[in-house]
Amino acid sequence: MYKLVLIRHGESTWNLENRFTGWTDVDLTPTGVEQAKQAGRLLKEAGYDFDVAYTSVLKRAIWTLWHVLDQMDRTWLPVVNSWRLNERHYGALQGLNKADMARQYGDEQVLVWRRSYDTPPPALEASDPRGQRGDVRYAKLRPEEIPLTECLKDTVARVLPYWNETLAPAIRSGQRLVIAAHGNSIRALVKYLDNISDSDIVGVNIPNGIPLVYELDADLKPLKSYYLGDAEAAAKAAAAVAQQGKA
Amino acid sequence: MYKLVLIRHGESTWNLENRFTGWTDVDLTPTGVEQAKQAGRLLKEAGYDFDVAYTSVLKRAIWTLWHVLDQMDRTWLPVVNSWRLNERHYGALQGLNKADMARQYGDEQVLVWRRSYDTPPPALEASDPRGQRGDVRYAKLRPEEIPLTECLKDTVARVLPYWNETLAPAIRSGQRLVIAAHGNSIRALVKYLDNISDSDIVGVNIPNGIPLVYELDADLKPLKSYYLGDAEAAAKAAAAVAQQGKA
Repeated sequence: MYKLVLIRHGESTWNLENRFTGWTDVDLTPTGVEQAKQAGRLLKEAGYDFDVAYTSVLKRAIWTLWHVLDQMDRTWLPVVNSWRLNERHYGALQGLNKADMARQYGDEQVLVWRRSYDTPPPALEASDPRGQRGDVRYAKLRPEEIPLTECLKDTVARVLPYWNETLAPAIRSGQRLVIAAHGNSIRALVKYLDNISDSDIVGVNIPNGIPLVYELDADLKPLKSYYLGDAEAAAKAAAAVAQQGKA
Repeated sequence: MYKLVLIRHGESTWNLENRFTGWTDVDLTPTGVEQAKQAGRLLKEAGYDFDVAYTSVLKRAIWTLWHVLDQMDRTWLPVVNSWRLNERHYGALQGLNKADMARQYGDEQVLVWRRSYDTPPPALEASDPRGQRGDVRYAKLRPEEIPLTECLKDTVARVLPYWNETLAPAIRSGQRLVIAAHGNSIRALVKYLDNISDSDIVGVNIPNGIPLVYELDADLKPLKSYYLGDAEAAAKAAAAVAQQGKA
Protein backbone atom coordinates (compact mmCIF):
# COMPACT_ATOMS: atom_id res chain seq x y z
CA MET A 1 0.00 0.00 0.00
CA TYR A 2 1.15 3.51 -0.84
CA LYS A 3 0.36 6.87 0.70
CA LEU A 4 0.20 10.07 -1.30
CA VAL A 5 -0.27 13.53 0.23
CA LEU A 6 -1.78 16.43 -1.70
CA ILE A 7 -1.82 19.98 -0.32
CA ARG A 8 -3.52 22.98 -1.86
CA HIS A 9 -1.46 26.13 -1.21
CA GLY A 10 -2.36 28.35 1.75
CA GLU A 11 -4.44 31.48 1.29
CA SER A 12 -3.00 33.76 -1.41
CA THR A 13 -3.34 37.53 -1.73
CA TRP A 14 -5.87 37.02 -4.51
CA ASN A 15 -7.81 34.37 -2.55
CA LEU A 16 -8.12 37.09 0.09
CA GLU A 17 -9.19 39.67 -2.50
CA ASN A 18 -11.55 37.08 -4.07
CA ARG A 19 -9.97 37.48 -7.50
CA PHE A 20 -9.59 34.89 -10.23
CA THR A 21 -5.91 33.96 -10.12
CA GLY A 22 -5.12 31.12 -12.51
CA TRP A 23 -1.51 31.33 -13.69
CA THR A 24 -0.93 34.77 -12.13
CA ASP A 25 1.97 34.36 -9.71
CA VAL A 26 0.73 35.87 -6.44
CA ASP A 27 2.13 35.58 -2.91
CA LEU A 28 0.76 33.83 0.15
CA THR A 29 -0.88 36.04 2.78
CA PRO A 30 0.35 35.80 6.41
CA THR A 31 -2.68 33.52 6.98
CA GLY A 32 -1.56 31.39 4.05
CA VAL A 33 1.94 31.08 5.52
CA GLU A 34 0.43 30.03 8.85
CA GLN A 35 -1.81 27.45 7.09
CA ALA A 36 1.24 26.02 5.35
CA LYS A 37 3.21 25.78 8.60
CA GLN A 38 0.24 24.18 10.31
CA ALA A 39 0.02 21.60 7.50
CA GLY A 40 3.70 20.79 8.06
CA ARG A 41 3.19 20.45 11.81
CA LEU A 42 0.16 18.17 11.28
CA LEU A 43 2.14 15.94 8.93
CA LYS A 44 5.09 15.76 11.30
CA GLU A 45 2.93 15.01 14.36
CA ALA A 46 1.10 12.28 12.42
CA GLY A 47 4.44 10.67 11.58
CA TYR A 48 4.48 11.36 7.86
CA ASP A 49 7.74 11.51 5.98
CA PHE A 50 8.62 12.00 2.31
CA ASP A 51 11.37 11.18 -0.14
CA VAL A 52 10.56 13.74 -2.81
CA ALA A 53 8.25 16.72 -3.23
CA TYR A 54 6.45 17.96 -6.32
CA THR A 55 4.96 21.36 -6.91
CA SER A 56 3.99 23.81 -9.63
CA VAL A 57 6.02 26.77 -10.93
CA LEU A 58 3.80 29.24 -9.01
CA LYS A 59 5.13 30.68 -5.79
CA ARG A 60 2.00 30.28 -3.66
CA ALA A 61 2.37 26.49 -4.02
CA ILE A 62 6.18 26.59 -3.82
CA TRP A 63 6.21 28.67 -0.62
CA THR A 64 3.52 26.41 0.86
CA LEU A 65 5.75 23.42 0.17
CA TRP A 66 8.82 25.18 1.60
CA HIS A 67 7.01 25.97 4.85
CA VAL A 68 5.68 22.41 5.06
CA LEU A 69 9.16 20.97 4.53
CA ASP A 70 10.68 23.36 7.06
CA GLN A 71 8.20 22.33 9.77
CA MET A 72 9.04 18.69 8.99
CA ASP A 73 12.82 19.34 9.09
CA ARG A 74 12.99 18.31 5.43
CA THR A 75 14.13 21.53 3.71
CA TRP A 76 16.85 19.46 2.02
CA LEU A 77 14.46 17.09 0.19
CA PRO A 78 14.53 17.15 -3.61
CA VAL A 79 11.78 19.34 -5.03
CA VAL A 80 10.54 18.93 -8.60
CA ASN A 81 8.63 21.82 -10.21
CA SER A 82 6.29 21.37 -13.14
CA TRP A 83 3.98 23.76 -14.97
CA ARG A 84 1.64 20.75 -15.35
CA LEU A 85 0.73 21.12 -11.66
CA ASN A 86 -0.18 24.81 -12.11
CA GLU A 87 -3.63 26.11 -11.28
CA ARG A 88 -6.25 26.02 -14.03
CA HIS A 89 -5.67 28.97 -16.36
CA TYR A 90 -8.54 31.42 -15.86
CA GLY A 91 -8.28 33.16 -19.23
CA ALA A 92 -9.59 36.71 -19.48
CA LEU A 93 -10.99 36.46 -15.94
CA GLN A 94 -7.48 36.48 -14.40
CA GLY A 95 -7.24 39.43 -12.04
CA LEU A 96 -10.99 40.13 -11.89
CA ASN A 97 -13.07 39.95 -8.70
CA LYS A 98 -15.32 36.88 -8.42
CA ALA A 99 -18.19 38.71 -6.68
CA ASP A 100 -17.98 41.66 -9.12
CA MET A 101 -18.27 39.21 -12.00
CA ALA A 102 -21.25 37.57 -10.28
CA ARG A 103 -22.99 40.94 -9.90
CA GLN A 104 -22.22 41.74 -13.54
CA TYR A 105 -22.95 38.37 -15.18
CA GLY A 106 -25.00 36.57 -12.51
CA ASP A 107 -24.10 33.81 -10.06
CA GLU A 108 -24.96 31.14 -12.58
CA GLN A 109 -22.55 32.39 -15.25
CA VAL A 110 -19.74 32.63 -12.70
CA LEU A 111 -20.51 29.11 -11.47
CA VAL A 112 -20.21 27.92 -15.08
CA TRP A 113 -16.86 29.68 -15.45
CA ARG A 114 -15.67 28.34 -12.11
CA ARG A 115 -16.99 24.84 -12.21
CA SER A 116 -18.17 23.78 -15.67
CA TYR A 117 -16.17 20.73 -16.67
CA ASP A 118 -15.85 21.59 -20.32
CA THR A 119 -16.75 25.26 -20.85
CA PRO A 120 -13.67 27.49 -20.49
CA PRO A 121 -13.89 31.16 -19.50
CA PRO A 122 -13.25 33.72 -22.27
CA ALA A 123 -9.66 33.39 -23.54
CA LEU A 124 -6.91 35.94 -23.07
CA GLU A 125 -5.38 37.50 -26.17
CA ALA A 126 -1.94 35.94 -26.75
CA SER A 127 -0.43 39.44 -26.38
CA ASP A 128 -2.30 40.24 -23.12
CA PRO A 129 0.22 41.24 -20.42
CA ARG A 130 -1.82 39.12 -17.98
CA GLY A 131 -0.79 36.08 -20.06
CA GLN A 132 2.31 33.90 -19.77
CA ARG A 133 3.59 33.72 -23.34
CA GLY A 134 6.63 35.89 -22.54
CA ASP A 135 7.35 34.39 -19.11
CA VAL A 136 10.85 32.84 -18.95
CA ARG A 137 9.67 29.93 -16.80
CA TYR A 138 7.61 28.68 -19.75
CA ALA A 139 10.28 29.41 -22.37
CA LYS A 140 10.89 25.73 -23.11
CA LEU A 141 7.22 24.97 -23.81
CA ARG A 142 5.67 25.06 -27.25
CA PRO A 143 3.41 28.16 -27.46
CA GLU A 144 0.31 25.96 -27.79
CA GLU A 145 1.19 24.31 -24.46
CA ILE A 146 0.82 27.68 -22.70
CA PRO A 147 -2.93 28.09 -22.28
CA LEU A 148 -4.91 31.26 -22.92
CA THR A 149 -7.81 29.79 -20.94
CA GLU A 150 -8.75 26.38 -19.53
CA CYS A 151 -11.82 24.50 -18.40
CA LEU A 152 -11.21 21.73 -15.86
CA LYS A 153 -11.20 19.21 -18.72
CA ASP A 154 -8.21 21.05 -20.20
CA THR A 155 -6.47 21.03 -16.82
CA VAL A 156 -7.10 17.28 -16.49
CA ALA A 157 -5.61 16.83 -19.97
CA ARG A 158 -2.30 18.41 -18.97
CA VAL A 159 -2.13 17.09 -15.39
CA LEU A 160 -2.76 13.43 -16.29
CA PRO A 161 0.35 12.97 -18.46
CA TYR A 162 2.36 14.16 -15.47
CA TRP A 163 0.60 11.66 -13.23
CA ASN A 164 1.16 8.83 -15.68
CA GLU A 165 4.73 9.61 -16.69
CA THR A 166 6.20 11.07 -13.50
CA LEU A 167 4.11 10.84 -10.32
CA ALA A 168 2.69 7.32 -10.61
CA PRO A 169 6.07 5.75 -11.54
CA ALA A 170 7.69 7.56 -8.59
CA ILE A 171 5.03 6.21 -6.20
CA ARG A 172 5.36 2.70 -7.64
CA SER A 173 9.13 2.84 -7.14
CA GLY A 174 8.44 3.20 -3.41
CA GLN A 175 9.07 6.92 -3.06
CA ARG A 176 6.85 8.78 -0.61
CA LEU A 177 5.45 11.85 -2.38
CA VAL A 178 4.02 15.13 -1.20
CA ILE A 179 2.46 17.32 -3.89
CA ALA A 180 1.81 21.01 -3.17
CA ALA A 181 -0.47 22.34 -5.86
CA HIS A 182 -3.69 24.24 -6.58
CA GLY A 183 -7.45 23.89 -6.22
CA ASN A 184 -7.99 22.74 -9.79
CA SER A 185 -4.82 20.76 -10.44
CA ILE A 186 -5.70 18.83 -7.26
CA ARG A 187 -9.34 18.47 -8.42
CA ALA A 188 -7.98 17.03 -11.66
CA LEU A 189 -6.01 14.40 -9.72
CA VAL A 190 -8.93 13.68 -7.37
CA LYS A 191 -11.32 13.28 -10.31
CA TYR A 192 -9.00 10.76 -11.91
CA LEU A 193 -8.07 8.85 -8.74
CA ASP A 194 -11.65 8.62 -7.42
CA ASN A 195 -13.16 8.22 -10.89
CA ILE A 196 -15.58 11.11 -10.33
CA SER A 197 -18.00 11.92 -13.14
CA ASP A 198 -17.80 15.14 -15.15
CA SER A 199 -20.99 16.34 -13.45
CA ASP A 200 -20.13 15.31 -9.87
CA ILE A 201 -16.70 17.00 -9.88
CA VAL A 202 -18.48 20.40 -9.82
CA GLY A 203 -19.35 19.74 -6.16
CA VAL A 204 -15.77 18.93 -5.10
CA ASN A 205 -13.90 21.79 -3.42
CA ILE A 206 -10.38 21.64 -2.01
CA PRO A 207 -9.64 23.74 1.10
CA ASN A 208 -6.40 25.75 1.40
CA GLY A 209 -3.48 24.28 3.29
CA ILE A 210 -4.97 21.05 4.65
CA PRO A 211 -3.12 17.81 3.78
CA LEU A 212 -5.29 15.41 1.76
CA VAL A 213 -4.07 11.84 2.19
CA TYR A 214 -4.71 9.06 -0.33
CA GLU A 215 -4.05 5.47 0.58
CA LEU A 216 -3.48 3.59 -2.67
CA ASP A 217 -3.33 -0.11 -3.46
CA ALA A 218 -0.65 -1.76 -5.59
CA ASP A 219 -2.44 -0.58 -8.76
CA LEU A 220 -2.63 2.96 -7.32
CA LYS A 221 -6.40 2.66 -6.83
CA PRO A 222 -7.61 4.56 -3.75
CA LEU A 223 -8.43 2.46 -0.70
CA LYS A 224 -9.46 5.60 1.15
CA SER A 225 -8.75 9.31 1.34
CA TYR A 226 -9.11 11.85 4.13
CA TYR A 227 -8.02 15.29 5.29
CA LEU A 228 -5.51 15.37 8.14
CA GLY A 229 -6.49 17.13 11.33
CA ASP A 230 -9.91 18.51 12.18
CA ALA A 231 -12.39 16.96 9.68
CA GLU A 232 -15.09 19.50 10.48
CA ALA A 233 -12.73 22.42 9.85
CA ALA A 234 -11.74 20.88 6.50
CA ALA A 235 -15.39 20.50 5.45
CA LYS A 236 -16.15 24.08 6.49
CA ALA A 237 -13.13 25.39 4.56
CA ALA A 238 -14.19 23.43 1.45
CA ALA A 239 -17.74 24.83 1.73
CA ALA A 240 -16.31 28.36 1.93
CA VAL A 241 -14.43 27.75 -1.35
CA ALA A 242 -17.76 26.84 -2.97
CA GLN A 243 -19.25 30.20 -1.88
CA GLN A 244 -16.56 32.42 -3.41
CA GLY A 245 -18.29 32.96 -6.75
CA LYS A 246 -21.54 34.40 -5.37
CA ALA A 247 -22.52 38.03 -5.57
CA MET B 1 33.20 34.09 -20.30
CA TYR B 2 31.15 32.67 -17.46
CA LYS B 3 29.77 34.22 -14.28
CA LEU B 4 29.38 32.31 -11.05
CA VAL B 5 27.71 33.69 -7.93
CA LEU B 6 28.52 32.41 -4.43
CA ILE B 7 26.52 33.48 -1.37
CA ARG B 8 27.29 32.64 2.23
CA HIS B 9 24.03 32.21 4.17
CA GLY B 10 22.65 35.12 6.17
CA GLU B 11 23.22 35.40 9.91
CA SER B 12 22.18 32.25 11.74
CA THR B 13 21.03 31.88 15.33
CA TRP B 14 24.41 30.44 16.24
CA ASN B 15 26.31 33.16 14.37
CA LEU B 16 24.39 35.54 16.62
CA GLU B 17 25.24 33.49 19.73
CA ASN B 18 28.87 33.20 18.51
CA ARG B 19 28.76 29.38 18.71
CA PHE B 20 30.65 26.90 16.54
CA THR B 21 27.97 25.52 14.22
CA GLY B 22 29.46 23.19 11.63
CA TRP B 23 26.90 20.61 10.52
CA THR B 24 24.38 21.59 13.22
CA ASP B 25 21.20 22.60 11.38
CA VAL B 26 20.27 26.00 12.82
CA ASP B 27 17.85 28.63 11.53
CA LEU B 28 18.47 32.08 10.10
CA THR B 29 17.84 35.03 12.42
CA PRO B 30 15.47 37.81 11.24
CA THR B 31 18.66 39.73 10.32
CA GLY B 32 19.82 36.72 8.30
CA VAL B 33 16.49 36.61 6.45
CA GLU B 34 16.84 40.33 5.66
CA GLN B 35 20.45 39.82 4.44
CA ALA B 36 19.24 37.03 2.14
CA LYS B 37 16.43 39.17 0.73
CA GLN B 38 18.85 42.06 0.24
CA ALA B 39 21.21 39.73 -1.66
CA GLY B 40 18.32 38.76 -3.93
CA ARG B 41 17.37 42.38 -4.52
CA LEU B 42 21.01 43.29 -5.31
CA LEU B 43 21.26 40.46 -7.82
CA LYS B 44 17.98 41.39 -9.47
CA GLU B 45 18.84 45.10 -9.68
CA ALA B 46 22.23 44.25 -11.19
CA GLY B 47 20.51 42.18 -13.87
CA TYR B 48 21.69 38.74 -12.78
CA ASP B 49 19.71 35.68 -13.69
CA PHE B 50 20.27 31.97 -13.12
CA ASP B 51 19.33 28.63 -14.64
CA VAL B 52 19.98 26.40 -11.66
CA ALA B 53 20.80 26.82 -7.98
CA TYR B 54 22.99 24.71 -5.74
CA THR B 55 23.04 24.60 -1.98
CA SER B 56 23.91 22.41 0.98
CA VAL B 57 21.54 20.24 3.02
CA LEU B 58 21.57 22.76 5.90
CA LYS B 59 18.60 25.04 6.26
CA ARG B 60 20.47 28.30 6.88
CA ALA B 61 21.87 28.04 3.33
CA ILE B 62 18.64 26.63 1.87
CA TRP B 63 16.47 29.41 3.33
CA THR B 64 19.02 31.98 2.18
CA LEU B 65 18.71 30.59 -1.34
CA TRP B 66 14.90 30.51 -1.15
CA HIS B 67 14.75 34.17 -0.13
CA VAL B 68 17.24 35.12 -2.86
CA LEU B 69 15.21 33.26 -5.48
CA ASP B 70 11.96 34.79 -4.25
CA GLN B 71 13.32 38.33 -4.54
CA MET B 72 14.46 37.48 -8.08
CA ASP B 73 11.06 35.95 -9.02
CA ARG B 74 12.82 32.63 -9.55
CA THR B 75 11.24 30.41 -6.86
CA TRP B 76 10.57 27.85 -9.61
CA LEU B 77 14.23 27.33 -10.57
CA PRO B 78 15.66 23.84 -10.07
CA VAL B 79 17.57 23.57 -6.79
CA VAL B 80 20.17 20.87 -6.20
CA ASN B 81 21.16 20.05 -2.61
CA SER B 82 24.44 18.40 -1.71
CA TRP B 83 26.08 17.58 1.62
CA ARG B 84 29.38 18.35 -0.13
CA LEU B 85 28.51 22.06 0.11
CA ASN B 86 27.89 21.84 3.88
CA GLU B 87 29.83 23.95 6.32
CA ARG B 88 33.11 22.56 7.65
CA HIS B 89 32.35 20.05 10.40
CA TYR B 90 33.46 21.56 13.68
CA GLY B 91 33.86 18.29 15.60
CA ALA B 92 33.55 18.40 19.38
CA LEU B 93 33.39 22.22 19.26
CA GLN B 94 29.91 22.17 17.67
CA GLY B 95 27.53 24.04 19.95
CA LEU B 96 30.26 25.69 22.07
CA ASN B 97 30.75 29.45 22.31
CA LYS B 98 33.76 30.81 20.41
CA ALA B 99 34.64 33.49 22.97
CA ASP B 100 34.22 31.03 25.89
CA MET B 101 36.63 28.68 24.16
CA ALA B 102 39.06 31.57 23.61
CA ARG B 103 38.94 32.45 27.32
CA GLN B 104 39.42 28.78 28.22
CA TYR B 105 42.07 27.78 25.66
CA GLY B 106 43.40 31.14 24.48
CA ASP B 107 42.85 33.16 21.31
CA GLU B 108 45.67 31.37 19.54
CA GLN B 109 44.26 27.88 20.08
CA VAL B 110 40.85 29.02 18.85
CA LEU B 111 42.44 30.62 15.80
CA VAL B 112 44.13 27.29 15.06
CA TRP B 113 40.80 25.49 15.38
CA ARG B 114 39.04 28.09 13.24
CA ARG B 115 41.63 28.74 10.61
CA SER B 116 44.43 26.15 10.58
CA TYR B 117 44.46 24.59 7.16
CA ASP B 118 45.32 21.08 8.26
CA THR B 119 44.71 20.78 12.03
CA PRO B 120 41.15 19.69 12.76
CA PRO B 121 39.40 20.49 16.07
CA PRO B 122 38.92 17.57 18.50
CA ALA B 123 36.63 14.96 16.91
CA LEU B 124 33.12 14.08 18.06
CA GLU B 125 32.48 10.56 19.27
CA ALA B 126 30.55 8.67 16.56
CA SER B 127 27.73 8.20 19.09
CA ASP B 128 27.61 11.88 20.14
CA PRO B 129 24.06 13.22 19.70
CA ARG B 130 25.62 16.41 18.27
CA GLY B 131 26.89 14.26 15.37
CA GLN B 132 25.14 13.36 12.12
CA ARG B 133 25.62 9.59 11.92
CA GLY B 134 21.89 8.93 12.57
CA ASP B 135 20.55 11.81 10.46
CA VAL B 136 18.28 10.59 7.64
CA ARG B 137 19.60 13.20 5.19
CA TYR B 138 22.98 11.45 5.27
CA ALA B 139 21.54 7.92 5.21
CA LYS B 140 22.87 7.18 1.72
CA LEU B 141 26.46 8.12 2.58
CA ARG B 142 29.05 5.65 3.74
CA PRO B 143 29.71 6.21 7.47
CA GLU B 144 33.29 7.32 6.76
CA GLU B 145 31.93 10.07 4.46
CA ILE B 146 30.12 11.65 7.44
CA PRO B 147 32.85 13.58 9.26
CA LEU B 148 33.41 13.65 13.01
CA THR B 149 35.59 16.74 12.57
CA GLU B 150 37.21 18.58 9.68
CA CYS B 151 40.03 20.99 9.05
CA LEU B 152 39.69 23.19 5.95
CA LYS B 153 41.87 20.73 4.03
CA ASP B 154 39.24 18.05 4.71
CA THR B 155 36.49 20.40 3.55
CA VAL B 156 38.41 21.17 0.36
CA ALA B 157 38.79 17.41 -0.20
CA ARG B 158 35.03 16.84 -0.21
CA VAL B 159 34.01 20.10 -1.94
CA LEU B 160 36.40 19.74 -4.89
CA PRO B 161 34.92 16.50 -6.27
CA TYR B 162 31.59 18.31 -6.38
CA TRP B 163 33.17 21.22 -8.22
CA ASN B 164 34.87 18.91 -10.72
CA GLU B 165 32.03 16.47 -11.30
CA THR B 166 28.94 18.67 -10.98
CA LEU B 167 29.47 22.44 -10.75
CA ALA B 168 32.23 22.95 -13.36
CA PRO B 169 30.48 20.80 -16.01
CA ALA B 170 27.22 22.70 -15.39
CA ILE B 171 29.00 26.04 -15.87
CA ARG B 172 30.78 24.79 -19.00
CA SER B 173 27.42 23.67 -20.43
CA GLY B 174 26.34 27.32 -20.31
CA GLN B 175 24.15 27.18 -17.21
CA ARG B 176 24.22 30.23 -14.97
CA LEU B 177 24.78 29.03 -11.40
CA VAL B 178 24.12 30.51 -7.99
CA ILE B 179 25.55 28.61 -5.03
CA ALA B 180 24.26 29.34 -1.54
CA ALA B 181 26.65 27.77 0.93
CA HIS B 182 28.77 28.35 4.04
CA GLY B 183 31.84 30.26 5.20
CA ASN B 184 34.19 27.33 4.82
CA SER B 185 32.69 25.52 1.82
CA ILE B 186 32.94 28.87 0.01
CA ARG B 187 36.53 29.37 1.29
CA ALA B 188 37.31 25.91 -0.14
CA LEU B 189 36.02 27.01 -3.57
CA VAL B 190 37.77 30.40 -3.35
CA LYS B 191 41.07 28.73 -2.39
CA TYR B 192 40.84 26.46 -5.40
CA LEU B 193 39.63 29.06 -7.91
CA ASP B 194 42.12 31.75 -6.86
CA ASN B 195 44.91 29.25 -6.18
CA ILE B 196 45.44 30.63 -2.65
CA SER B 197 48.21 29.03 -0.58
CA ASP B 198 47.52 26.95 2.52
CA SER B 199 48.94 29.75 4.68
CA ASP B 200 47.24 32.69 2.93
CA ILE B 201 43.75 31.15 3.10
CA VAL B 202 43.75 31.77 6.88
CA GLY B 203 43.25 35.48 6.16
CA VAL B 204 40.27 35.00 3.86
CA ASN B 205 36.87 35.59 5.49
CA ILE B 206 33.48 35.41 3.76
CA PRO B 207 30.77 37.82 4.97
CA ASN B 208 27.17 36.64 5.47
CA GLY B 209 24.63 37.22 2.73
CA ILE B 210 26.68 39.25 0.21
CA PRO B 211 26.84 37.86 -3.35
CA LEU B 212 30.43 37.07 -4.41
CA VAL B 213 30.74 37.14 -8.19
CA TYR B 214 33.41 35.27 -10.14
CA GLU B 215 33.99 36.02 -13.78
CA LEU B 216 35.63 32.94 -15.29
CA ASP B 217 37.35 32.35 -18.60
CA ALA B 218 36.69 29.41 -20.90
CA ASP B 219 38.94 27.21 -18.71
CA LEU B 220 37.07 28.41 -15.61
CA LYS B 221 40.07 30.41 -14.44
CA PRO B 222 39.02 33.62 -12.62
CA LEU B 223 39.35 36.84 -14.60
CA LYS B 224 38.15 38.79 -11.58
CA SER B 225 35.96 38.46 -8.52
CA TYR B 226 34.09 41.00 -6.43
CA TYR B 227 31.31 41.41 -3.88
CA LEU B 228 28.09 42.89 -5.17
CA GLY B 229 26.86 46.12 -3.62
CA ASP B 230 28.76 48.26 -1.09
CA ALA B 231 32.42 47.10 -1.20
CA GLU B 232 33.24 48.81 2.08
CA ALA B 233 30.35 47.09 3.88
CA ALA B 234 31.52 43.72 2.51
CA ALA B 235 35.08 44.33 3.76
CA LYS B 236 33.78 45.38 7.19
CA ALA B 237 31.55 42.29 7.40
CA ALA B 238 34.46 40.03 6.45
CA ALA B 239 36.66 41.68 9.11
CA ALA B 240 33.95 41.06 11.73
CA VAL B 241 33.97 37.35 10.84
CA ALA B 242 37.72 37.31 11.56
CA GLN B 243 37.10 38.75 15.07
CA GLN B 244 34.60 36.11 16.21
CA GLY B 245 37.13 33.77 17.81
CA LYS B 246 38.63 36.29 20.21
CA ALA B 247 38.04 36.32 23.96
